Formats: sequence, C-alpha cells, structure tokens
Amino acid sequence: MINQLIQRIQKTKAPICVGLDPMLGYIPEHVTRKAFDEFGETLEGAAEAIWQFNKEIVDHVYDIIPSVKPQIAMYEQFGIEGLKIYKRTVDYCQEKGLLVIGDAKRGDIGSTSAAYATAHIGHVKVGSSVLTGFGTDFLTVNPYLGTDGVKPFVDVCKEEDRGLFVLVKTSNPSSGEFQDQLIGGRPLYELVADKVVEWGADCMDGAYSNVGAVVGATYPEMSRILRKLMPNTYFLVPGYGAQGGTAEDLKYCFNEDGLGAIVNSSRGIIAAYKQEKYAKFGAEHFGEASRQAVIDMVSDINSVL
Amino acid sequence: MINQLIQRIQKTKAPICVGLDPMLGYIPEHVTRKAFDEFGETLEGAAEAIWQFNKEIVDHVYDIIPSVKPQIAMYEQFGIEGLKIYKRTVDYCQEKGLLVIGDAKRGDIGSTSAAYATAHIGHVKVGSSVLTGFGTDFLTVNPYLGTDGVKPFVDVCKEEDRGLFVLVKTSNPSSGEFQDQLIGGRPLYELVADKVVEWGADCMDGAYSNVGAVVGATYPEMSRILRKLMPNTYFLVPGYGAQGGTAEDLKYCFNEDGLGAIVNSSRGIIAAYKQEKYAKFGAEHFGEASRQAVIDMVSDINSVL
Repeated sequence: MINQLIQRIQKTKAPICVGLDPMLGYIPEHVTRKAFDEFGETLEGAAEAIWQFNKEIVDHVYDIIPSVKPQIAMYEQFGIEGLKIYKRTVDYCQEKGLLVIGDAKRGDIGSTSAAYATAHIGHVKVGSSVLTGFGTDFLTVNPYLGTDGVKPFVDVCKEEDRGLFVLVKTSNPSSGEFQDQLIGGRPLYELVADKVVEWGADCMDGAYSNVGAVVGATYPEMSRILRKLMPNTYFLVPGYGAQGGTAEDLKYCFNEDGLGAIVNSSRGIIAAYKQEKYAKFGAEHFGEASRQAVIDMVSDINSVL
Repeated sequence: MINQLIQRIQKTKAPICVGLDPMLGYIPEHVTRKAFDEFGETLEGAAEAIWQFNKEIVDHVYDIIPSVKPQIAMYEQFGIEGLKIYKRTVDYCQEKGLLVIGDAKRGDIGSTSAAYATAHIGHVKVGSSVLTGFGTDFLTVNPYLGTDGVKPFVDVCKEEDRGLFVLVKTSNPSSGEFQDQLIGGRPLYELVADKVVEWGADCMDGAYSNVGAVVGATYPEMSRILRKLMPNTYFLVPGYGAQGGTAEDLKYCFNEDGLGAIVNSSRGIIAAYKQEKYAKFGAEHFGEASRQAVIDMVSDINSVL
C-alpha cells in the first residue's frame, strides 16, 4: 500500500494530503443554505452541506494530489448522518483515484483493536459474506496501549495490503507533556519510534514499511532525530500551515531521496477561500481557491526538497 | 454525572457495568439465523442480530445494574449499520434507566477532540438547532496527546454534566510497554494520574470528580498506588473475569467508603450461556444466563468490600 502512495506522490510531484475536516463554519453560506432548505437544520442537513462541500473540493483537486485524509471526528459529531458522509467521501475519493488516510486514531486492547482494524482497513465476515465497514487505505493509530493494542492493526495491514500511521510525536502544543518525558535519557516518543520500526519490519512494501508514523511539523528538531531512527518509515506530517509549521520545518521529515513524508493541510486548503490571499476567488468559487492553495503548498514544500 | 452513577450503584448495590461488546460469535444461532433470514448475510443482518442480542440481555439485567459500557469498536466493524445499533442501544439503555459509558477511547489535538466530545457527550449546533450525535453519559478518553487533547472533553463535561474515564493503566498484557516506563523514578501512568487529578479538580460532583480514570483489574499493586494518588477519582475497571482479574485483585480500586470504582465485565456476562457454569440455561435463554452471571459477579465483588 505504501508503495502505491509513493507512486502517486511521484506522479503528482505532490507529497501532500488534503485534510477533509469540514467544520460547518468553513462551508460557504450558499452551500449550507441549500442543504438546510432541502433537509432542514438537522443532522441530515449538516451532513448534506458537508458532502456538497467535500465533493466540490475533491472535484477541484483530485488530479493534482495523491491522497486525502478525512478526520472522522468532524463527521462523528453529526452522528450516523455524519458518518454516512464520511463513508460517501471515502468512496468518492477512491473512485477519483485518490488514496484515503482515515484519521481516526483508534487503539484499544487486542480484541477491540482487531474490531477497529476490521472496521476501517479490513473486512468483516457475516455468515458466508465478506463485507466492508469504512474501507480506507490507511488508518492512524494510537500506541498508548502497547504492542498488543497495535498488532491487530498490523496483522490486517499484512493480510489486506493496507497501511497505518502510528502516533509518535504529535503536532499540538501539549504533545510534550507525556511524549517528551525522558525514560533512561530518551524521550517517550523515541521509544514509540523504536516500536514502530519493530512493528513495521515484516510489513515492508518496497523501500518503506506499511507501518508509518505521525510526526508533527511543529517540532523540526525532533523530526530530524526521528527521521534517522526510522529510515524506512513513512511520516504523516500534520501541523503545516494553520498550526504553524513551515516548509523549512518540514525538510527534516524527508529522506535524501525526497521521499519519506506526506504533509497534511486541512484548513489551509479546504477553507482557503477565507484567506485574504485567495479572497479573489470568492465564496462561490471555493473549490478553485482550494486548488490554488494546493498548488501553492506543493510549490512551497518542493522548494525545500 | 458521577453522582448519579454513585446513586445508582448504591441503589442496586452493584458497582458494575455490563460491557455490551457483542461479537457475532457470542450470539446464539437462533438469533443470527432469524436476523439473516430477514436481512440476509449483510451488514444490516449482522446489526439486527446484535440489536436483538443486546435487547434481550438489557431486558434481563437492567433492574439490577447501574450502567452499561458498549464498546463502539464492536459496532464500528459493521460500518454505518453497526453504528446505528450502537446508537439504538445507547438510547434503549437510557430509556431503561441505565447510565451509558461509551467506550470509544477517543483523543486527538484540541479542535478534533472538541468534535469527538460533541459527538459522544455533547450537542452539535446546526443553524439554530441543537442536536445530539450519540448522547452517552460517560466517554473513555486516550491521554497520549496531553492536556490540550483532553481539555475539550473536560469542557463539555462541565457544560453538560457528563463524565469521562481517562486511560491511566490499562488491563492488557502489553500495557506496561509505555505506561510503566519510569520517568524521574515514577511510571508514566502515575504522571497521567496526576494530570487526571488536575483535569478533574474543577469538575467535582459531590465527593468525586466527573473526570475518572481507567485502571485495569489485572495489576492490583498498581491500583493500590493509584487509589492513593487519586482519592476523588472514580475508577472504571476493566479486566475482571475473562481477562484474568479476580475480586481479590479489585479491592484496591475501591476507597474505604466502598465507593470509587465501577467494574466492567463483557464476555463474562453477555456470553455467560456459553460457560459450563450457566449451560443449564441453554442458548435459548441466554438472557437469563446473563442475569445469573450479573448476580454472581455482584456477590463476588461485594464479598471483598
């Protein structure tokens, strides 16, 4: 699976994913108004607005990016109706030729992680049928419960050729509270990195493993060390743009071959039309603003590689 | 919210929750057969079987327990159809007077955690409507991202009088891999415990905080220390029964007032009819077997308090 992602990154020359994390506040009024007119100010109405918003953005960017990363929380908040749109977005993006990184950060004890893995990257057996829950290509995973909490995800990756990105060092301000604590002189995130390498060792797909790592763009010094600790691990890098990470901060996430990292931007792309820089497109043409923001982001990142 | 839970624990004299974690393999054949006959071997068929199974168990135990803990992964694996049954189970249990602990172990950066909190224990605004996603009373939360990842859940607890259980020391075999690592001489889970106390301090609801902790039954020595570190924190205790924790192991999770902990059992209750001890009920009467298993579990736990 990671090899498919790399091929699409090379084809588009865009080591990025677009975070499809639609908050209602990002959606232009003409889109929400139409959805509310049809379905009312209901969960269904909100879900419809999100779907139309996502579709417009995907239609404007699918040919210049390798992948998207929908954040499931943004859909979960609208309950079942929201999750239907999560699933519809996943399916639509895959139809458009995009790889989908489900950002769900799941993780639990063994049998429960197995159910999450089934839900998101696997298949479930019902009688003699083999069926799909959400069917994303990659999934983000939380490592706090240790190996037996992560292993079921790795097993599904091997069986189904899917991929993971395990949280190692996250991009948020408090990420250091536990992740940076020193254990025998080394921060916790390095111990997690060691485990990610171990989990990924028999999951290689070409030069990289199907077990990747989440490494925030906001801590470049740490990225530099993590890059060395995990030479064959792909990094999913949040924190670029709205969260403060710059292209300069990102360069340590990449290997010398120009590979090894995929950078996410959510707000910076999907709500681009709200930025002064893209205001000329107007809210009516928010998809075009997003396309221009993707082009600018790719050029910004490629300038440091 | 925690005060409501305590009142129900005192009324039922049952410091337990029943883990509604239905695997298809737990469901008697007559239930799945009927569901598959109606809906086929589909996600809908599986979801219908789970719903009928859950309903029968809840109908047989609701009057002798304070709460249930559905594990959302077991529903998520059947995609949207499964999640509809999760929601239907939450609603049905609440109608029956039970408090519902949503076991979803969510946790992310701030804005995303806010969306998860909205989804599970809060309300979402759509235009001028205020709507509910899943509407559980309590939610389990993963602390790996630190304070800004947990705070949005705490904020919703304060606004809506809901409760949390934050993972501190989990019950699984690998839990020590990261959680037990020593930081300045103290294990990571103790640092997390300190933070749980801090997060819960302005969330008090009587003698206990609405911010509780997950502390596994399988590590009694650690429970003893954690009990002292977190005197006003309610413990949600997994690991009893099928995972190996005994009543004797549990006693350190309780305070001297006999309060302070709620013990979960999933398989041991919902699949009781499969145990030799309850075989006399037969698969047809699995609900009665579950009721007897609850009575036995309560008596076992009360024997050490």
